Amino acid sequence: MTRLRIGLSIGDPAGVGPELALRVAERISEFPGVRLGLIGNHALLGRVAAKLGLPLPPERLADRWSHELAAEAGPPVVSVTVGDLDADAVRPGIWTSQTGAASCEWVRFAVAAAMLNQIDAVVTGPIQKEAWHAAGIPYPGHTELLADMAGRKRVRMMLTSEELSCVLVTVHLPLADVAARLTEQDVLDSILLGAEALERRTRARHGRGPRVTVCGLNPHAGEHGLLSHSEEERIIEPAIRRARQAGVDVTGPLSPDAAFLPARRRITDVHICMYHDQGLIPLKALAFDEAVNVTIGLPIIRTSVDHGTAMDIAWEGQASESSLMAAIRMASELA
Amino acid sequence: MTRLRIGLSIGDPAGVGPELALRVAERISEFPGVRLGLIGNHALLGRVAAKLGLPLPPERLADRWSHELAAEAGPPVVSVTVGDLDADAVRPGIWTSQTGAASCEWVRFAVAAAMLNQIDAVVTGPIQKEAWHAAGIPYPGHTELLADMAGRKRVRMMLTSEELSCVLVTVHLPLADVAARLTEQDVLDSILLGAEALERRTRARHGRGPRVTVCGLNPHAGEHGLLSHSEEERIIEPAIRRARQAGVDVTGPLSPDAAFLPARRRITDVHICMYHDQGLIPLKALAFDEAVNVTIGLPIIRTSVDHGTAMDIAWEGQASESSLMAAIRMASELA
Repeated sequence: MTRLRIGLSIGDPAGVGPELALRVAERISEFPGVRLGLIGNHALLGRVAAKLGLPLPPERLADRWSHELAAEAGPPVVSVTVGDLDADAVRPGIWTSQTGAASCEWVRFAVAAAMLNQIDAVVTGPIQKEAWHAAGIPYPGHTELLADMAGRKRVRMMLTSEELSCVLVTVHLPLADVAARLTEQDVLDSILLGAEALERRTRARHGRGPRVTVCGLNPHAGEHGLLSHSEEERIIEPAIRRARQAGVDVTGPLSPDAAFLPARRRITDVHICMYHDQGLIPLKALAFDEAVNVTIGLPIIRTSVDHGTAMDIAWEGQASESSLMAAIRMASELA
Repeated sequence: MTRLRIGLSIGDPAGVGPELALRVAERISEFPGVRLGLIGNHALLGRVAAKLGLPLPPERLADRWSHELAAEAGPPVVSVTVGDLDADAVRPGIWTSQTGAASCEWVRFAVAAAMLNQIDAVVTGPIQKEAWHAAGIPYPGHTELLADMAGRKRVRMMLTSEELSCVLVTVHLPLADVAARLTEQDVLDSILLGAEALERRTRARHGRGPRVTVCGLNPHAGEHGLLSHSEEERIIEPAIRRARQAGVDVTGPLSPDAAFLPARRRITDVHICMYHDQGLIPLKALAFDEAVNVTIGLPIIRTSVDHGTAMDIAWEGQASESSLMAAIRMASELA
């Protein structure tokens, strides 16, 4: 049997990431063939495991863990300490520049391992963006870091569930800046990457390529300039025409509030959304706890939880591991 | 028994409004005590009724219809011709400046009747905003016209269904202009009007006042300025504090994609949304065909369908009257 090696960066140590990592480690038998490396800090996981009465996977050295994951007799889950976080100094629910720096280093380590084919996929736990900022990390989130590490500019965030898959053209921007940052090329890339990402799934399920629905930017898709600065005509429509010329089955731009109606969802495999909340609001309203964040356009496979660090309930044992379970399932399907 | 008189403006004559008006007229017995005046053009309704095989209500004169609706022996539905639309010139699916001017005149007539207490509520059918524009009407939609006619500035659009009620702080604006147009006073008014609108319903159902959830403007509610221009801190939070001082049970600003999660919806009676699609996307994704548009802050009761003119299927008999039925039900509950 093929063993699928997944590196899981455990997220901000002060958040719910560590306990969720321990929870999925406990449930690893639900993923036949999957071997998991928890990339973080073993002493920290030990504190969380002790507090919540969860089993602690065995520790492995950072230069040997991926070999052991591949070995037939190896344990199904190992814990790997990366970097020099002072685990005793971490206070649950209180992020610091140290927790930010550590969580970023863990992501970099997992991604580098995937780029070297030492593992087959990366799954990332929730980070605290403000902690990254406080640590001087120049990325608003995972996606931008991944694009830089992989040297790919055409990278997109896709949120996916059984109900809905959304590719975001812009992601972590103030709403006021979205319109000015929207480009025809970015819309086109999003359509092409979204179609590519769903190609295998729709071929397998329906024997055809994916159907793409593109949202407008403005209310009612701008009503031909009445409620817009003609972004639909200037930017979105030309991108749709080019995608169609490239052979993609694509419709739009649709009025955003019509794009997520049940009837439209039934005939759409992937939605292209102009900004973060245009996709995330309906996705979470319809499918919380099942949605997974997939970075598309990368040379490696990377999925993520679709929730945050939930600092208010960190280390309390209340957070649900459903989204992380779904992220691991999705990574193993893609790998 | 009290008779409730509702004036229904039939919407753009080239759209699906006329056939929906005839459909609900046919089903009037489902609303005990409600009497309906179809405000539009009798010849036009006659054309649509003949084409689709629907019954045509009797015509009444514009200066006498509301008296007849109130009379015990009067018919449950009457048709009233207002203005001088050439009904024979209307082509299904093709709006013109004439169809725009007519549909606007019908709304004005119904609203004036309500302001004079000749009727108890106004329900509006779907208009074509571009047709209003082509006719030189300086309003992007019903709400703004109603505010002007009633001399009220503090008027808001609320979309409501069993699942979700959303008050919109800004409505028919290009997305790029939303942030610059957001004011503390408008957010505060929206909270107060939303709480006021839901007061009776939540008292009756739960024996308490309404719980209000306020959305942020930016992704993740701005993450304290990281993903925003501090609109949450400068505009939304001060408005929430003032509303709380005024005694409203209000929470926020929440990350917009968390505000519509099932768990949050269960503890919220009304959501305050910063822009059109922030409220309309989840509302329609969750509750299409049941959502009703209510204008709050007016001295009259006005509800509306939450869909458009559907020009592509106009006069074909395919459009569903569910939303119009819901709008009439809501108007009769409020009146």
